[in-house]
Amino acid sequence: MISKGLPGFRDFPPEDFALRAHIFRVWREVAARYGFEEYDGPPLEPLDLYTAKSGDEIVGQLYNFVDKGDRQVALRPEMTPTLARMVGARANGMKKPIRWFSIPQLFRYERQQRGRLREHFQLNCDLIGEAGPLADAEIIALSIDMMRGFGLGPQDVRVRVSDRLFLSSALRQLGIADAMTPLVFQAIDRIEKNAAAAREMLDAHLDTVTVAGVFRLTDPAHRAELRRSISAATHFGAALNALDEMGFGEWIDFDPTIVRGLAYYTGTVFELFDAKRTLRAICGGGRYDTLLGSLGGADLPALGFGMGDVVLGELLKDRGLHPSVGASIDVFVAAVTPADVEHVLKLSHELRDAGLRVEFALNTQAVGKQLNLANARGARLAVVIGPDDRARGEVQLKDLVYKTQEAITDSSLASHLSSLVNDSRLTTPNG
Amino acid sequence: MISKGLPGFRDFPPEDFALRAHIFRVWREVAARYGFEEYDGPPLEPLDLYTAKSGDEIVGQLYNFVDKGDRQVALRPEMTPTLARMVGARANGMKKPIRWFSIPQLFRYERQQRGRLREHFQLNCDLIGEAGPLADAEIIALSIDMMRGFGLGPQDVRVRVSDRLFLSSALRQLGIADAMTPLVFQAIDRIEKNAAAAREMLDAHLDTVTVAGVFRLTDPAHRAELRRSISAATHFGAALNALDEMGFGEWIDFDPTIVRGLAYYTGTVFELFDAKRTLRAICGGGRYDTLLGSLGGADLPALGFGMGDVVLGELLKDRGLHPSVGASIDVFVAAVTPADVEHVLKLSHELRDAGLRVEFALNTQAVGKQLNLANARGARLAVVIGPDDRARGEVQLKDLVYKTQEAITDSSLASHLSSLVNDSRLTTPNG
Repeated sequence: MISKGLPGFRDFPPEDFALRAHIFRVWREVAARYGFEEYDGPPLEPLDLYTAKSGDEIVGQLYNFVDKGDRQVALRPEMTPTLARMVGARANGMKKPIRWFSIPQLFRYERQQRGRLREHFQLNCDLIGEAGPLADAEIIALSIDMMRGFGLGPQDVRVRVSDRLFLSSALRQLGIADAMTPLVFQAIDRIEKNAAAAREMLDAHLDTVTVAGVFRLTDPAHRAELRRSISAATHFGAALNALDEMGFGEWIDFDPTIVRGLAYYTGTVFELFDAKRTLRAICGGGRYDTLLGSLGGADLPALGFGMGDVVLGELLKDRGLHPSVGASIDVFVAAVTPADVEHVLKLSHELRDAGLRVEFALNTQAVGKQLNLANARGARLAVVIGPDDRARGEVQLKDLVYKTQEAITDSSLASHLSSLVNDSRLTTPNG
Repeated sequence: MISKGLPGFRDFPPEDFALRAHIFRVWREVAARYGFEEYDGPPLEPLDLYTAKSGDEIVGQLYNFVDKGDRQVALRPEMTPTLARMVGARANGMKKPIRWFSIPQLFRYERQQRGRLREHFQLNCDLIGEAGPLADAEIIALSIDMMRGFGLGPQDVRVRVSDRLFLSSALRQLGIADAMTPLVFQAIDRIEKNAAAAREMLDAHLDTVTVAGVFRLTDPAHRAELRRSISAATHFGAALNALDEMGFGEWIDFDPTIVRGLAYYTGTVFELFDAKRTLRAICGGGRYDTLLGSLGGADLPALGFGMGDVVLGELLKDRGLHPSVGASIDVFVAAVTPADVEHVLKLSHELRDAGLRVEFALNTQAVGKQLNLANARGARLAVVIGPDDRARGEVQLKDLVYKTQEAITDSSLASHLSSLVNDSRLTTPNG
C-alpha cells in the first residue's frame, strides 16, 4: 500500500499548482521590473551554514542529519546564508548594487499545530552594496508592487515600517541604557499582544516612569506626532519621504512596535499585513548591514525581505484574486471513423506547431464521447474530421461555448484557429 | 567563515539560472501544447514510498534519515511513487487519460565520480489511463517536440525505440525460456558496450547457437529487416506507424538493444540520445501498465518519461542553443542634480507600472557614473533628467546602443519607451 505524504508537506495537484504558478509568475514579473535577477542554491546545505548565523539553538527546528559521507547537513530553513556564500564568492567582480531574488522552498521541523506547514516557498529579494536611504525605499517599494501585482491595494494590505536606529535613540532619550535595548526591543515586539511586556521590563529593574515612557512611545495615539518628529535629514526620514515620492505613501504605517525578532537587523524594519489583521505577516524584512561580513562573505551593506506563499495564497483566496481553474486545451480534434485518425494525428501536430494546446482521442470512440472529453478539458473549439470532410478538403469547426459549427478549408485551419483562440482567451470566462 | 556548498550540489547564480529558466520555460510551453497540466509533490517523502517500489537495495543510494518525529524519510530520488500516490487518491473523479507533468528536483547519494551530481531537475511527463498504441506514440511525440522546442532536430538527437513484448516474443522464437528473459534482457542492455554480455548468457547455460541468435537479433545490420517484420496490427507496430503519421518518422531508430534496466516496464521503451553519442541519455521512458496498481494506487495502464536538465543543458551549450546573458533592465533613469531625484523616483515608477524593467541610482552620482551602471546592466535606453529639462517638461532620452539622444515630453515618455523597448527586444543582439 502507498503511504501518505509526511505531515506538514503539501501535494500540488494541478488545481492547487495553478495558484502557486500564479504567485510565482507575479513575483517574477514584478522583480524583473525592478531589475532583479533570479538565482537559486541547493535545498540541502552544510549544517554549519545555519549554526554560524543563528547559533546551535536553531538545530532543534531543522531537518538535519548526517549524510552517507559523514557530513552534518540540513534542509535549508532560510536563504540568507546561501545568498551570503554565493555573493561572497563573486562580490568583487559584480557591479553594485546587486539586485537578486530567489524563490526557494524552505523547511522547518516545527511541532505541528493546527495544520501548520513544515515547508513553504518564500520569495527572497535582496539589495546588496548600497547604504543610502533610497535603497530602503526601493526594497519596500518592491514589496508593495508585489501586492499591486496581485491586484491588492492599500485597503487590503498595510506596510508597517520602523527603524531600529530611531527606536534605539528614542529609548536612549527615555534614559534606557544601551545594554538594556535588546530586552526592551523584545518587550516592544510583544507589546501589542501582551501586557506582560510591562512585567518583563519591570522585572529587569526599569522604573515605572521609564516603562510608561516605552508604552507612550509605542502608543498608536501618539504615532502621527512621532512620525512628524522624524527629520528628513535622517536615513529613516529620507527613506519614508522617497516612498511618498514614489507614490506609495498611502500604503505606509509608521509603527514603532515593529522591531522584528531577528537580532541582525541594523536599521529599517518592515512587515506587510492584511489590513484586517486576521492573518500572519505576508512579508517581513529590513536592513542588515553587518550580517554578510559577519558570515565571512563580502562586507557589504544590504537589505531585503522574505514573502511566503502560504499567507499570501490565503489572502488571495479570501479576496477572490486567485486564478480560476482554466481550460487545459484550446482545441480538441475528433475523428469520425478509424480511417480519419491518420488525418487527426497530422492536423493535431500542425496545430500544436502553431502554438495551440491540442488533444485528441487516443482510442476509437464515438464523436459524442470525444466531445465529452473536449468539454471536460475546457476546450473552446473542436475540429471534427470525417470521410466526407476529407474528400472535400475540409474539416468541421465547432465552437463549444457558442454551439456553432462551420466548415473550414483544411489548409487554412491552423492560422484561423490561432486567431480565434487568441481572441477567446481574452473574452471567454475561463480563458 | 562561510562553508562551501555540499559536493554534487549546484549553485545557480543568475548567469547559470538563465539556462535553467530557459529549459523549464520550453518544457512548460511544449507540455501545455499537449494538454499536460503541471503538478508537484513534496521533496521529502516517507522512505517506504521508495522501498515499496524498488526494494531495500535502493536505500543505499538515497538521502534518507530519521526525522524528529521518528519517521523514516528520504529526499525524493524519483517522482513516480509520488505520482502514484497522488493519482491513486483522486483517480476515480478524474477524466482519463490523465495528462500530468512535473519538474521535480531529485536527489541520489551516488559515490561521486568526475563531477557527477547528486541532484538534478527532471521533467516527468505521464499519460495515465490509456492502454492503446496512440498513447505510446503521443508520449514519444511529446519527448521529440521537447527537442524541437529547444531548436534541436533529428540530426542532433535520435530516439531509440523498442518494445519489451516484441523482444520477449523474438527471444521465445530463439527457444529461450520465459524464465531466462530477464537475464537476457540484462545482457542485451549491455550488449553494445560489452562483449561480456555473451559470457553472461553462456554462463547461464544458454547454448552458443541461441547466444548467436541474440547477437543477430540485436545486430545493427539486421535492424531494417527486423523493423519490417513488425506488423502494423501489433501494438508496437501501430505506435511506430502513428509516429510516422504525426510527422516524426525521421527521428526514430528502432533499436532492440533498448530494454531499460528498470523491471517495471511492460511494453514500449525508448531513450533519446545526442546523435554523436558523446553524452549520456537525454531522456528515457516507456509503458508501465502494472506499476500504479502494484503500488496500491489506481490500477491503470500508464506510460511516461523523465528528462533531466543536466545532459540536456550540456547539449544545448554544445550546439550554441543556450540563451545568451541578456540585459537585466530596459531603461536606466539618471538624475543630473540631487534636486532631480524626486522626479526620477516618480518617473521610474510610472515606467515600471507600464511594464518596463527600470533601475536608477540609489545614491548621488555623476551622470557618467550612472550611465556606466546602465551599460553594465545591458540597458538599451537611458532617461536623463536635469533642472533645465524639468523646467521645459522634458527629459533627455539616450539610445545607449545607437548613441543617439533626443528630448521627449515627460508625459509621453512611458508609452514612447514601451514601444521602443518592445521593438528593441526583437532587434538588438542581447535583447
